[in-house]
Amino acid sequence: MVEIGTWVFEGLWIAGILAFAISGALVGVRHNLDLLGVLVVGLATGIGGGVIRDMILGVHPPVSFTHWPYWTTALVGSLAVFFFHPRLSKIRTFEIVFDALGLGIFSAYGAAIASQSGVGFITAVFVGTVVSIGGGLIRDVLVNDVPGVLTRELYAVSAILGATVATVITQFTGHLLIAATVGGVLAIALRLTSYARGWHLPKPRRSN
Amino acid sequence: MVEIGTWVFEGLWIAGILAFAISGALVGVRHNLDLLGVLVVGLATGIGGGVIRDMILGVHPPVSFTHWPYWTTALVGSLAVFFFHPRLSKIRTFEIVFDALGLGIFSAYGAAIASQSGVGFITAVFVGTVVSIGGGLIRDVLVNDVPGVLTRELYAVSAILGATVATVITQFTGHLLIAATVGGVLAIALRLTSYARGWHLPKPRRSN
Amino acid sequence: MVEIGTWVFEGLWIAGILAFAISGALVGVRHNLDLLGVLVVGLATGIGGGVIRDMILGVHPPVSFTHWPYWTTALVGSLAVFFFHPRLSKIRTFEIVFDALGLGIFSAYGAAIASQSGVGFITAVFVGTVVSIGGGLIRDVLVNDVPGVLTRELYAVSAILGATVATVITQFTGHLLIAATVGGVLAIALRLTSYARGWHLPKPRRSN
Repeated sequence: MVEIGTWVFEGLWIAGILAFAISGALVGVRHNLDLLGVLVVGLATGIGGGVIRDMILGVHPPVSFTHWPYWTTALVGSLAVFFFHPRLSKIRTFEIVFDALGLGIFSAYGAAIASQSGVGFITAVFVGTVVSIGGGLIRDVLVNDVPGVLTRELYAVSAILGATVATVITQFTGHLLIAATVGGVLAIALRLTSYARGWHLPKPRRSN
Repeated sequence: MVEIGTWVFEGLWIAGILAFAISGALVGVRHNLDLLGVLVVGLATGIGGGVIRDMILGVHPPVSFTHWPYWTTALVGSLAVFFFHPRLSKIRTFEIVFDALGLGIFSAYGAAIASQSGVGFITAVFVGTVVSIGGGLIRDVLVNDVPGVLTRELYAVSAILGATVATVITQFTGHLLIAATVGGVLAIALRLTSYARGWHLPKPRRSN
Repeated sequence: MVEIGTWVFEGLWIAGILAFAISGALVGVRHNLDLLGVLVVGLATGIGGGVIRDMILGVHPPVSFTHWPYWTTALVGSLAVFFFHPRLSKIRTFEIVFDALGLGIFSAYGAAIASQSGVGFITAVFVGTVVSIGGGLIRDVLVNDVPGVLTRELYAVSAILGATVATVITQFTGHLLIAATVGGVLAIALRLTSYARGWHLPKPRRSN
């Protein structure tokens, strides 16, 4: 049982890497980069969040550089996008969906792992949020887009929701897998619903 | 007495975080971001410098993630800006002023702390300069502005001045508080004077 | 003999810093930044790769902040560009050439050093590639250019080639200097040839 739980948990993280790598490679295709440009954006987006997490927690060198399944997943996902990407007119939608999947998985998983490692409540929520936002931020800064976290519907809210729920569940029950799953599903649901319905937080008053 | 000095010193750093968070949130308002977009830019600008310092010095996880007064300050400052920001026509001026306050405090404080921790003269000046420039850099890269450090009047010069003065005073007298205060006041004064008078360093010759 | 090898090896790294600093300062001149703006871009580009390497490997504070020959080299190179830069019409070409020199030296040297420090094959290649691409990435993000790594001819390919060759030679022979030299020369040759001939990797199919 424990064995299976571990595998499922590792599979979750890899699913997050895959989702973010695909979103990054799609952005690369949309910007008409060449093969390696697409791979670089895909790789950086897929493993960027994990590298940021390891920098924060002091893991040297980052696990994503040493554990081959991680970068292999990001590479394969990016290659698949390069060769089999959808029509340009649909790329934006796919970007949003895969980005939402990565955001949800990383926020909940990152917070659960951090929480289990013994840091406090707020720090765990911070780590989950930063890890999940980080990959997409790297992607958007790389290609000179304004970062989605600043403009997309309830983007940071969804990340914070996923990280908070996962931290609460981890600290009260110790069930990492449940924490990561419930938090992740909630975050993804909120992000995609807000996108579909065009929900936005209020904007600043304009006085002139 | 020691007690009071410690509190004043902590208060200085928090003042720097507040100033930078306000400058970041103002930029977010100017770019018409929604509530959480403004908070993200404000938080990243306010605690960004400290996170960079901890990455450089190897403090894991960064103090800004674990010590609640820091991120609370950045959050409150950003919220206040969202609800009570000045008219758009004045935002630029407020941005410049709060950015200058953050720059001066962080450069002198960062250099004084680094110097006291035992690193050499040049490293201390480096740390102070990088910490003070870092927060504003994150802010400007986030919203796709050309970084102020590359274009604003005597920006990096002011940071280097503050860091150098603070390092010299720390190494010769050991008075951290005096070092941070004198260095910070000088840096802020130089930055604001250069802004008011339009002082610039020379530009490269144009040969064609 | 050992002594001489060490000096040559250190000289190689400094040559890489100088090349990248010059490329960064040239970009600063092209963007019409003032004296300190040019120095900041030059310094960040010159020592940025090394700082990233130290962050990855967990060296605190980064060697580039503590070992004066590194930042002095970057500073002198940037100053020289500010005062003696070529005509604007030629700056682009000089940028490309010095950037290629830095890319080749850093990819091979970074991979050789990492490989010798005991990390695995893939990690060594990763470190060399990230170090060599990192400096130029910082430069391009700073001035809001689309990063060269995403658009220039065989840029990342050249870095990966240099890092891979250097890692293979280090692991099979242990000759760091030969590894760094052969890998570096190959990477520079591939990058400059691909630039001169306009070689590109394939771009994604456009379906509409």
